[in-house]
Amino acid sequence: MSATRSLDPDPPSGRSPSFGDVAHLGHVELLTPELEASARCFTSVLGLREVGRDATHAFLRGESEYELAGLTLTAADQAGIGHLGLRTSSAEALARRVEAVLAAGLPGQWVEDGFGHGPAFRFTGPSGHPTELYWETERYAAPEADRPPAKDRLGRRGTAGIDVRRLDHINLLAPDVSAAASLAWSALGATLLDEIVDDVGVMAGAFTTFGQRPLELVYTRDPYGAAGRLHHVAFWVDTREEVLRAADIFVDHGIQIEVPPAQHTIGRSFFLYGFEPGGNRIEITTGADLVLDPDPPTRTWTAAERRRGVGWGTTFPASWGAYGTPDVRAE
Amino acid sequence: MSATRSLDPDPPSGRSPSFGDVAHLGHVELLTPELEASARCFTSVLGLREVGRDATHAFLRGESEYELAGLTLTAADQAGIGHLGLRTSSAEALARRVEAVLAAGLPGQWVEDGFGHGPAFRFTGPSGHPTELYWETERYAAPEADRPPAKDRLGRRGTAGIDVRRLDHINLLAPDVSAAASLAWSALGATLLDEIVDDVGVMAGAFTTFGQRPLELVYTRDPYGAAGRLHHVAFWVDTREEVLRAADIFVDHGIQIEVPPAQHTIGRSFFLYGFEPGGNRIEITTGADLVLDPDPPTRTWTAAERRRGVGWGTTFPASWGAYGTPDVRAE
Amino acid sequence: MSATRSLDPDPPSGRSPSFGDVAHLGHVELLTPELEASARCFTSVLGLREVGRDATHAFLRGESEYELAGLTLTAADQAGIGHLGLRTSSAEALARRVEAVLAAGLPGQWVEDGFGHGPAFRFTGPSGHPTELYWETERYAAPEADRPPAKDRLGRRGTAGIDVRRLDHINLLAPDVSAAASLAWSALGATLLDEIVDDVGVMAGAFTTFGQRPLELVYTRDPYGAAGRLHHVAFWVDTREEVLRAADIFVDHGIQIEVPPAQHTIGRSFFLYGFEPGGNRIEITTGADLVLDPDPPTRTWTAAERRRGVGWGTTFPASWGAYGTPDVRAE
Amino acid sequence: MSATRSLDPDPPSGRSPSFGDVAHLGHVELLTPELEASARCFTSVLGLREVGRDATHAFLRGESEYELAGLTLTAADQAGIGHLGLRTSSAEALARRVEAVLAAGLPGQWVEDGFGHGPAFRFTGPSGHPTELYWETERYAAPEADRPPAKDRLGRRGTAGIDVRRLDHINLLAPDVSAAASLAWSALGATLLDEIVDDVGVMAGAFTTFGQRPLELVYTRDPYGAAGRLHHVAFWVDTREEVLRAADIFVDHGIQIEVPPAQHTIGRSFFLYGFEPGGNRIEITTGADLVLDPDPPTRTWTAAERRRGVGWGTTFPASWGAYGTPDVRAE
Repeated sequence: MSATRSLDPDPPSGRSPSFGDVAHLGHVELLTPELEASARCFTSVLGLREVGRDATHAFLRGESEYELAGLTLTAADQAGIGHLGLRTSSAEALARRVEAVLAAGLPGQWVEDGFGHGPAFRFTGPSGHPTELYWETERYAAPEADRPPAKDRLGRRGTAGIDVRRLDHINLLAPDVSAAASLAWSALGATLLDEIVDDVGVMAGAFTTFGQRPLELVYTRDPYGAAGRLHHVAFWVDTREEVLRAADIFVDHGIQIEVPPAQHTIGRSFFLYGFEPGGNRIEITTGADLVLDPDPPTRTWTAAERRRGVGWGTTFPASWGAYGTPDVRAE
Repeated sequence: MSATRSLDPDPPSGRSPSFGDVAHLGHVELLTPELEASARCFTSVLGLREVGRDATHAFLRGESEYELAGLTLTAADQAGIGHLGLRTSSAEALARRVEAVLAAGLPGQWVEDGFGHGPAFRFTGPSGHPTELYWETERYAAPEADRPPAKDRLGRRGTAGIDVRRLDHINLLAPDVSAAASLAWSALGATLLDEIVDDVGVMAGAFTTFGQRPLELVYTRDPYGAAGRLHHVAFWVDTREEVLRAADIFVDHGIQIEVPPAQHTIGRSFFLYGFEPGGNRIEITTGADLVLDPDPPTRTWTAAERRRGVGWGTTFPASWGAYGTPDVRAE
Repeated sequence: MSATRSLDPDPPSGRSPSFGDVAHLGHVELLTPELEASARCFTSVLGLREVGRDATHAFLRGESEYELAGLTLTAADQAGIGHLGLRTSSAEALARRVEAVLAAGLPGQWVEDGFGHGPAFRFTGPSGHPTELYWETERYAAPEADRPPAKDRLGRRGTAGIDVRRLDHINLLAPDVSAAASLAWSALGATLLDEIVDDVGVMAGAFTTFGQRPLELVYTRDPYGAAGRLHHVAFWVDTREEVLRAADIFVDHGIQIEVPPAQHTIGRSFFLYGFEPGGNRIEITTGADLVLDPDPPTRTWTAAERRRGVGWGTTFPASWGAYGTPDVRAE
Repeated sequence: MSATRSLDPDPPSGRSPSFGDVAHLGHVELLTPELEASARCFTSVLGLREVGRDATHAFLRGESEYELAGLTLTAADQAGIGHLGLRTSSAEALARRVEAVLAAGLPGQWVEDGFGHGPAFRFTGPSGHPTELYWETERYAAPEADRPPAKDRLGRRGTAGIDVRRLDHINLLAPDVSAAASLAWSALGATLLDEIVDDVGVMAGAFTTFGQRPLELVYTRDPYGAAGRLHHVAFWVDTREEVLRAADIFVDHGIQIEVPPAQHTIGRSFFLYGFEPGGNRIEITTGADLVLDPDPPTRTWTAAERRRGVGWGTTFPASWGAYGTPDVRAE
């Protein structure tokens, strides 16, 4: 399809042969120059709960996360992403994925001190984002104050704000989307469901998943060719009504909205984009179609198709294509 | 239609000739033996905001109420209703309604110290509920912390819990529904949209309105023949999704649900019933059809029709017909 | 406030002294050069039901309309509005409003052959739109095939498409908004809830209502200074979810979307704009805040405030300000 | 846990070692003594589309099904289930599952003439339900009239009725739930997420999944000890609002509602139960929590816990425990 992809020995397409070894995106570490304000936004506006805190970190969870914390905030000079964590399906699956990463020529190291999970293999792929693979994890056991009435629930609803239920997906900016997607497909077992190919045939976007959700790990092209930057991190709510209510809450609590609620075409999710006080772009999302097909063909979207807008005709502001964290735009 | 109604010289039917003089239900005073717990429920679970407080009262408002406080909680030995307040459409309309109440042979007196409004004429009708008529009122001006970004909003959303927007309606228990409805129709200008007539032809329920909502002031027959008791007070949310979310929040915060979310036939509203810690029944409601017809015929529902259940077939538990506040069931 | 308004002896502000005499917007006649295609759109896509038809007209109703037909389609050379009908609250109210129209120096005539209603007084106000006032009307009695199971419903749901429930409001383009709004306020009893004032102090938008909905009869300035043109006619659905679903249905059935679902600030309604095949702009709307206040202050919005976008930041495409029917843009 | 389970050499618990080999429930064949009426219900009320028809069958699909037909209706003397079809993840996975079924001592045969899919291995497990395993399938390619505007959609929305999007899950009645669940776990790779254990420790319900949805293949105990009967088949809509709208449509189109919309505890889905004209119980469902955990512990629910009602306190009518198809209740 693209010049870049033809260089790959094993270009990503459809379901990865290693599908299933990575179970899901487990956690994201966001960097913020405004730790207090960011923590306040994620707790009182998004409704996450704090499960750990030290001078430079806040560990936060959504009510339906079975692990301890889907989000870590870390004080830093600049906004951006610290790392992302991927939980594997078993200890054996972890061993296989580590082997595959090493076989791809990527160095890495075992990290022992992750919050809420066991040993993690940390490496940095071609997109420049530190990534952890881990199997052992700590399941959340609600303290009395958060204990729900029935055992299918993990915590209580409605404490504050938008009441997001869990971390959903992450969109990373990559200097070379094809290289990033290829590694995700070949070494991590990510299925490539959708790709955007630009006017000269180069992959500009890759939408990959580890399960039945239509996207979990998304790479789009960094407009500055930089490595390691974040486009956005997305949090799940159960209904589109909650996305609409979230927009009211963003407005009423001073969280800048970048794109008001609208519908994506790729993934068919309903969304709202804004910026947390540290500067990172966040998405409130719901409603995507599940992918039940075990052999899903990769859909290729041309740049022309994308220029028509998404969903019901929504077009994005210029910032959506230009801004990421850390911000590298010329002052 | 019923034996009782035939005794009325001017039985209520359809729109009252005085329609429009009372503008809307303005506020309700609930009595509670558990003031602190009740106030906590209405603020942290329902999401009302406290605008005033003293040793025996809490004054609370929903975000979209243009007046100061739609709900007053008053410490008392027993749960129940202290009074309800009806705002008139003008000073002249107030004078007309006071005259009509007096002409109906009901004594009353002017009360000067109401929270958030001007002089009120207080009387007790045949149903035994203290009722105030008032015109002058204080409009809510949000303090900095609650100030919304645009002038069409009165306050901020999402501070806590269910985030109800305003007081909606009240359902009073009356020993003689027909007498209560007749006074509401003839002296207060309430339109009778729906009535329930029992198997022997006596009015057992009267659904009246002062505007275009399908119900505002509802009388149903007191199963114990008592006067002055409360069936429930209802708070509005904008969407059925918020009623469903409210059910989660009730469950997760220990607010007993009496009837899970379902659909009414009369009024076509969507509802959830539960009990606040003081023992009063509360409803979370939305979605009723507006009544645009200026000459709406009264619909008569037979007891047989009511036994079929409401909406999509929901039947009510025994408590719904038997319980009111104060509770007068034999110990 | 504005130069134009200061010329009025009795400028519109807040509730009209004649409030209540007009009960509600009853029906709208749309002109269409594509009668068949328009009728198909309104029935199979919007879900209205045909209750009458001849060679040049289709008479259509929403399921919850108590009158016979909220919408008439009339074959014509150009798209636009034929007339609008306002139902009064009584025969006496009709007489008063006719007297007021005549007193304002506007000629008019009684029309006897309206579909589904009795004699109507037809006049054309300063905005150039033929307007009917009527009291007698025919209530819809469902034929067997449309008979609902309970008497609070007027028809059946779910036959097709979006399943709109009723006509909601109309937005007319006027060469002189202040003059149009003044007549509506003084002669028709419309309350002015919101006005837009342009940068030189002239009224550019007037949002008026005959009841508790935040808008029913809206005038905005005709960009071409023309008279008698239509901006849009709006149909009500009960939930925001149905507006979102409507967007899918518009896309899937070839109905061009002009503005994807978003939130208005004025009126706080949720909306979707598109074009029916005849060229008239239509809105699918829900969710507006009711106006319970009997003495609502008129809110004045500056052009600067309006330029910030509506609701959660949505800005309108150029067509929204430029296009009306009939289309008078230079070829 | 239960007497029955202790007899199993390899009792089902959590994720199956064969997880992933079966991709998802692909189709269900319902038997109906009222083929025409059933087909009309599934098309005009549920909104499925007919993709094939002969004298004794109707083949139907939901708009988001990538395969040809999720539902087959077959004329028969009695209501019930003809068979269910499970699509595997690959040809190899199919071979492995067939081998496992044979190794479990169950006879089976290859069937070549399935509508819309390739060769299927058909067997009948201990629950008595004919079950097909298949890999090759025909993907739906929309004809012009159903072609959607963007390539992420498979068909058009809003043609009629509830507009369900796809087959979701099936609940079978089994004489021995533990035996049925054990086979599903060991031979089919189903994960056991939830089980109900009765007061004497016998498994009375098993909720199993092949992917991330909380339930796909459910077994509950047949109250008559019969084999091969159906409790219900469930169809997916995207939002809870659509379940509520479905209830209106059921009522308005004469589809009997058994349980009005409410919330399940197990699976946390939102539901509505009714009966199609052939007598089979159908569910409209949405909203379940996804199971991201690759190692989910089986939750055990006691009969006492179940007696408390589901979700927000909903209790089921007696028919829910007593009725299945074919109906074997004594006349």
